Amino acid sequence: MTTGSSWTSGKLRELDPSECLELLRSRSVGRVAFCAEDGPVVLPVNYAVHDGDVLFRTSPHNSIARHVNSRPAAFQVDEIDDFTQSGWSVLLRGTAELVEDVHDLPQEDRPVSWAEGTRTLYVRVPGGSITGRRLYPT
Amino acid sequence: MTTGSSWTSGKLRELDPSECLELLRSRSVGRVAFCAEDGPVVLPVNYAVHDGDVLFRTSPHNSIARHVNSRPAAFQVDEIDDFTQSGWSVLLRGTAELVEDVHDLPQEDRPVSWAEGTRTLYVRVPGGSITGRRLYPT
Repeated sequence: MTTGSSWTSGKLRELDPSECLELLRSRSVGRVAFCAEDGPVVLPVNYAVHDGDVLFRTSPHNSIARHVNSRPAAFQVDEIDDFTQSGWSVLLRGTAELVEDVHDLPQEDRPVSWAEGTRTLYVRVPGGSITGRRLYPT
Repeated sequence: MTTGSSWTSGKLRELDPSECLELLRSRSVGRVAFCAEDGPVVLPVNYAVHDGDVLFRTSPHNSIARHVNSRPAAFQVDEIDDFTQSGWSVLLRGTAELVEDVHDLPQEDRPVSWAEGTRTLYVRVPGGSITGRRLYPT
């Protein structure tokens, strides 16, 4: 699907997948979105990027765990500069899945959560569909 | 529903609705989320807050316009401090609707888009369901 325009027009440029991936790698907190029974939910999580996929950790008992296993999800990161009224945004969309083989991942590719708590579940959002846009200052 | 934990545990505090509203008013860019046929989509938009509801503008011809009219939507804002590994996040959830009476709104309550382009459609996400959390630095 075409995601259409939120930031649009003259000052805006679509980013190619390699730029999107580079920007995705530049942040440590993104937002996972899923469709619950009563509509979409968006929640911030720490994440890591491995082979172009997003990995994040969550608790086995929360709503993320209930809704992302083998179901469509989105993962969004951005950087916004209020002063220059500019920024960029990157969006991954795909079927999220639980990661069984987390111990095969290099340590540096494992997501680290800022918050305390039990997050034994690792979730992967595949990087196959990645789009992004940059809004330039006027 | 309980949105569950993304940032969770010791260092995290749930925010009450009045704090959420205050934080919501403190930003100018948020993220609208909707469920498309092939899964969730999250896109940044400029917004304003009027009577506790979020208002934003969009083009009549894009995917936001196609998916938010009288359908469940979410609106998310946050502020993240990478250095102290802390931040807050606020989430509105409700049925989005097109605003017919935009000219009745005070000028200061109308959303202003940073990007150029035709955004004749005004969308309201009601503020009835607002939740948020703050993650404190360790």
